[in-house]
Amino acid sequence: MQQYTITIHGGAGTILKEDMTPELETGYKQGLEDALNAGFSLLEKGGSALEAVLAATRSLEDCILFNAGRGSVFANDGSQEMDASIMDGKTLMAGAVAAVRHIRNPVELAYTVMTKSQHVLLIGKGAEDFAALHGIRTEPDEYFFSPFRYEQWKKMQGTNEAALDHNVKLVDKKFGTVGAAACDRYGNIAAATSTGGMTNKQWGRVGDSSIIGAGTYANNKTCAISCTGHGEMFIRAVTAYDVSCLMEYKDLSLQEAMEVVVHDKLMKIDGEGGMVGVDAKGNAAMVFNSEGMYRGIRSSSGISDTKIYK
Amino acid sequence: MQQYTITIHGGAGTILKEDMTPELETGYKQGLEDALNAGFSLLEKGGSALEAVLAATRSLEDCILFNAGRGSVFANDGSQEMDASIMDGKTLMAGAVAAVRHIRNPVELAYTVMTKSQHVLLIGKGAEDFAALHGIRTEPDEYFFSPFRYEQWKKMQGTNEAALDHNVKLVDKKFGTVGAAACDRYGNIAAATSTGGMTNKQWGRVGDSSIIGAGTYANNKTCAISCTGHGEMFIRAVTAYDVSCLMEYKDLSLQEAMEVVVHDKLMKIDGEGGMVGVDAKGNAAMVFNSEGMYRGIRSSSGISDTKIYK
Repeated sequence: MQQYTITIHGGAGTILKEDMTPELETGYKQGLEDALNAGFSLLEKGGSALEAVLAATRSLEDCILFNAGRGSVFANDGSQEMDASIMDGKTLMAGAVAAVRHIRNPVELAYTVMTKSQHVLLIGKGAEDFAALHGIRTEPDEYFFSPFRYEQWKKMQGTNEAALDHNVKLVDKKFGTVGAAACDRYGNIAAATSTGGMTNKQWGRVGDSSIIGAGTYANNKTCAISCTGHGEMFIRAVTAYDVSCLMEYKDLSLQEAMEVVVHDKLMKIDGEGGMVGVDAKGNAAMVFNSEGMYRGIRSSSGISDTKIYK
Repeated sequence: MQQYTITIHGGAGTILKEDMTPELETGYKQGLEDALNAGFSLLEKGGSALEAVLAATRSLEDCILFNAGRGSVFANDGSQEMDASIMDGKTLMAGAVAAVRHIRNPVELAYTVMTKSQHVLLIGKGAEDFAALHGIRTEPDEYFFSPFRYEQWKKMQGTNEAALDHNVKLVDKKFGTVGAAACDRYGNIAAATSTGGMTNKQWGRVGDSSIIGAGTYANNKTCAISCTGHGEMFIRAVTAYDVSCLMEYKDLSLQEAMEVVVHDKLMKIDGEGGMVGVDAKGNAAMVFNSEGMYRGIRSSSGISDTKIYK
């Protein structure tokens, strides 16, 4: 029988137990559980992998602890600019947005780009106009305001530094991104990724989360992958698609291919981070080269787990 | 002895001899010759592949006949928004910009992102601020104004249609992009791509020209590739990096890998267009699945040619 599975992440980096409070750890775990529930319950009911990754990613975007959607970090000008992408492994269709503001769920906008436009990638004000045309829900600045993120930004404001992290203490070594990969009862797979980017980012910097092939990729023939890490390195390494190529052209398994990319290819260019992925048989893997990665997995075979540290 | 080579393109699509005037054909050929001269003369003097693709792409951007830089098409709002990218096969460093206005040579800005920032991709107003900081040359609207492009846009204005083409007559089947790939005396390779996008484009649409892995890729181990075509399909197929993977993981030659991607992978998703590429031995190839592709090649082995049709 076809196994169905979902795996999610909420970012990777120098996440150390000594820096965590029990309350915060419980909060992160709950955020991961909520996302697994949102995605897996759809798979159980016969929903598609695409619907599952959309629901799980939306759930993570709604949790203020993760750097995506509601919990997005502040850019250099005090705004929140978000990126997201989604890909359907059955059709190889994809949608993505970059540098959008006030969108409650950027992953939903990416899905709408995929399903309601001829395009793959829309950016900035233009993408927001497209969102308005399609009734995508927006929120005022207050919705995205968290005292924690604001303090984090204030500390960097006026500098040219940008942090990939969403934790002030570990400012240079955490990568705030969320994402999901799923395989449904029919053997179709999909992946989605969403981020609020780097704290204090400027110059319209865009990372890998909105780049098909880098942050997100899905193809029923191989795998569905969502990445989190130092975006520039993931773009240069074409990370998500590299896993697919190693499976398609070198016959590596999902786990093997992810390990080559994360522990060898990325390490060679100091690319810190990780990824979650599935194949069309419902196998899943979660691989990272950083201290920790917020992650979770649930499968029809009975596996259900959330983890933070190595 | 190490062979050095440069190959360039000025876009692909339904380019038919019966639609061309002798004057226009001479103009296109001259634009291609000028770009080959600009790039190859540097290679002869011992310049790097990176310098050569930068010079050749800049030359194509300066020619008003090609849809990039000066000759960029009009977007839906009457502006010219340009995308470009560049990658160095020796270091795997890359730079890219999307949706920038008034920049005389977007490929130069992409190069500056690569060499003067920690980032790979900068977009919109932020990228323009970065350009100003680094003294990148800008031009007023008049510089980018061509009566031909303006007429082309006026015909589509007020519609929701967007054309990938820069020719009114063949509006739905030409892909205006320029690019270059080169191999230098030292066996280093590089690639660059630049475009003015789709006529009447809206919603901040971005194609493959600024996406590393899709429109541009370079790696000394395999190949340097610059693509032109229906950008959405090239993004979904991760086109440029797929050529590299077929060489690295399946031991295909440059020509074989490009043919698989252009004639098989892209055709399966109706992805019309083509690409030019080199490997680190100085072999070059130009492959397309459309009626024509403006293209040129020059090599230390004595080859020198420009072509338009099949």
